[in-house]
Amino acid sequence: MEQFEKVSIVKKANVYFEGKVTSRTVIFADGSKKTLGIMLPGEYEFGTAAAEIMEILAGEMIVLLPGQSDWLTYKAGDSFQVPAESRFKLKVLLVADYCCSYIEN
Amino acid sequence: MEQFEKVSIVKKANVYFEGKVTSRTVIFADGSKKTLGIMLPGEYEFGTAAAEIMEILAGEMIVLLPGQSDWLTYKAGDSFQVPAESRFKLKVLLVADYCCSYIEN
Repeated sequence: MEQFEKVSIVKKANVYFEGKVTSRTVIFADGSKKTLGIMLPGEYEFGTAAAEIMEILAGEMIVLLPGQSDWLTYKAGDSFQVPAESRFKLKVLLVADYCCSYIEN
Repeated sequence: MEQFEKVSIVKKANVYFEGKVTSRTVIFADGSKKTLGIMLPGEYEFGTAAAEIMEILAGEMIVLLPGQSDWLTYKAGDSFQVPAESRFKLKVLLVADYCCSYIEN
């Protein structure tokens, strides 16, 4: 069972879309952050500040990345990257468990 | 912003009721565990192994504790305790963010 060790976790959740998307913020010893989250089935649009790597831990979704015209399918074990300062769309088909890493310059 | 420091967190979520209830497991240096979770509006019944303290971080619910005949309301800032090896019912009225502590003997 994979764990993040010697980290801090913010007690309160981040809640979006009336709770259909929620996450918890994990802070590493070097100051970097990841969020561990859940997305229920539905359609969502998100904006990024920093670039992000989204790792899908469970579930299934189709994703429209910025500047693309095709929706791509991502499932457990897959990852995709989203540029900084951009917007992307998600259609979650099966309850999705994810880990989002933020790439600070 | 309250944080748990120097902990481990299990990367994958615990998912119940088709994702309407999810949690992440946090492991402390002394081996004790808590879960940080989200419950969407709905009705749920849970069983305990160890006794639990449920701290409500956000949201609102009514709870029927084992052996009780009255449903009691719990909101952000409230806590309630559930005995070991028992069952209890929840009706979540507003998306609930919670911290569950397990009391091992």
